[in-house]
Amino acid sequence: MQLYHAPQAVNPERTYNFLKAKGQLDAVDIVEISIMKGEHKQAAYRNLSPFAQVPVLVLDDGTTITESRAICSFFEHMFPEPNLMGRDAMEKGLIEMWDRRVEFMMMMQFATWFRNAHPVMAPLEKPQLPEAATKAERAVKAFTARLDEHLYQKDWIAAGRFSIADITLYLTCGFCGVMRWRPHEEFENISHHYARVRDHLK
Amino acid sequence: MQLYHAPQAVNPERTYNFLKAKGQLDAVDIVEISIMKGEHKQAAYRNLSPFAQVPVLVLDDGTTITESRAICSFFEHMFPEPNLMGRDAMEKGLIEMWDRRVEFMMMMQFATWFRNAHPVMAPLEKPQLPEAATKAERAVKAFTARLDEHLYQKDWIAAGRFSIADITLYLTCGFCGVMRWRPHEEFENISHHYARVRDHLK
Repeated sequence: MQLYHAPQAVNPERTYNFLKAKGQLDAVDIVEISIMKGEHKQAAYRNLSPFAQVPVLVLDDGTTITESRAICSFFEHMFPEPNLMGRDAMEKGLIEMWDRRVEFMMMMQFATWFRNAHPVMAPLEKPQLPEAATKAERAVKAFTARLDEHLYQKDWIAAGRFSIADITLYLTCGFCGVMRWRPHEEFENISHHYARVRDHLK
Repeated sequence: MQLYHAPQAVNPERTYNFLKAKGQLDAVDIVEISIMKGEHKQAAYRNLSPFAQVPVLVLDDGTTITESRAICSFFEHMFPEPNLMGRDAMEKGLIEMWDRRVEFMMMMQFATWFRNAHPVMAPLEKPQLPEAATKAERAVKAFTARLDEHLYQKDWIAAGRFSIADITLYLTCGFCGVMRWRPHEEFENISHHYARVRDHLK
């Protein structure tokens, strides 16, 4: 299998670190793609990933799977241990709930802020909308404060154990640095969580 | 188990129709919540769903699960047949990939258009941003045209069989009616797909 990967981009890193937490990075050939150079927009890459998304997983029969979390679900079924998405119905529900909350209310809101506010995104966002940036910044900061409360005296975000939701939060915190915002320096419980996940993924 | 449900809202309907397709509506007590009356914002409801999301599933031990798709994953594990999320790694990956594409590139883009453009949303979106509506309208229409091509000569959206991704698309098409836009009347393949899912869910 080939995994097309863009280091430092949040969605590719989600899949990459998920596979790393499984101890299965050797199961794929990593092919690096430069988003900054626009390699994901070129025709050869679009043949694999029609919406120019990174990552894409290419199976040995040529089947292609995009969407970071969908590729994680593929790996979860193929390499069941360590379990990262829940063992029973309740764990599966709670882990996906928190993974989605972090993805939608934090990662995506942050991305909307970043895309509409950062000069590097000006050529890609036509047009950048400063008011959309302001609204999204407000939303992501309000959610993050509530998430910090949720993490009070908790080691992990969901179901009392390490899961994909912890990886998603950890990478989103890192991503926020592109706007010089560091939730893991600003919020105490998120700070502890960030260090815990970083150590776990070492 | 209790399932708090808001009929006609797209996310609650996703969970409801997923459970219906499982033939398991009798497994839950349905409690209806009126979003229009703001019942989801009241303190008693927020105790169950801290971000005021509908639906919420309340388990017999009091555990609460929000996020429509996370509740579907709970039901998928609890009631395995008929399978709606994939039997093997490849099916799981492909079904989640398409479900996410429809959710992010169609449902969420449409929601951004609707929230920023429809008068009924003015009291909730402070402020409504007409340019954000225009950008999202363009994005959702571009994606939907490509989705129609994907459905050419296909009965189902992913993995060659009926899945959660078909339910998500069907409900999103219905949701689009609030802006007087009907993808299932405008696009031929989506139209066939819409009728097929409607019949399947009867």
